[in-house]
Amino acid sequence: MQGLHLTADLHDCQCDSAWLTDASRLIEHCECAVLRAGLQPVARLAHAFPAVAGQPAGVTATVLLAESHLCVHTWPEQAAVTLDVYVCNFGGDHSAQAQALLAGLMDLFIPRQVQRHSLQRGALPARVPGP
Amino acid sequence: MQGLHLTADLHDCQCDSAWLTDASRLIEHCECAVLRAGLQPVARLAHAFPAVAGQPAGVTATVLLAESHLCVHTWPEQAAVTLDVYVCNFGGDHSAQAQALLAGLMDLFIPRQVQRHSLQRGALPARVPGP
Repeated sequence: MQGLHLTADLHDCQCDSAWLTDASRLIEHCECAVLRAGLQPVARLAHAFPAVAGQPAGVTATVLLAESHLCVHTWPEQAAVTLDVYVCNFGGDHSAQAQALLAGLMDLFIPRQVQRHSLQRGALPARVPGP
Repeated sequence: MQGLHLTADLHDCQCDSAWLTDASRLIEHCECAVLRAGLQPVARLAHAFPAVAGQPAGVTATVLLAESHLCVHTWPEQAAVTLDVYVCNFGGDHSAQAQALLAGLMDLFIPRQVQRHSLQRGALPARVPGP
């Protein structure tokens, strides 16, 4: 369960707006991005939220990985996206692949501002050696 | 997209081991836990990893929410679980519901040690007021 969880919150995305509203297109791209990054998809799910006042709403796309998960939420009315890439180290250190996947998705959405966060997960605190 | 992302990494879980290996049972429980916490499930997906050397392997269960997502990964060989609850504030502040959902799932898995983390997401840095 030890591994790396990367988040990125993307503002003012300059991509084609269809990437923020077309769930089928987005999940297809996410799975390809996972493969290109060298990670292993095992299942995928996308959900398109209902249009509001005739305007297309956001989507959620998640790809479950052998190494943990990718999750993408979009807010087209704000040209905003959140990304989560979590990879456990089962079978090896997948940190480089996680960084590559995040970079690939940021290239897709072309944000003008990004807030990133990195969290090392699952390691128990070191125990103080006994006498 | 502004909201709260809670993570909890659970060690030495004392629950019935079926909660760590039975994907159908776990996803059913997760959806109920979401509803009990006052959040809205919109889709769900579970994946069971293949058994290794005759021993049941872990599962991943995710519930997509109107408010963002819940994701659970289990490692039965380590009696370990990771939890992610991310709720955006679209339509209101869902922080209390996120905390309730996390607490409900921790009650299910009964960990002896937990590492928790809380991340406020999506807020742009404050701009310096102009003259």
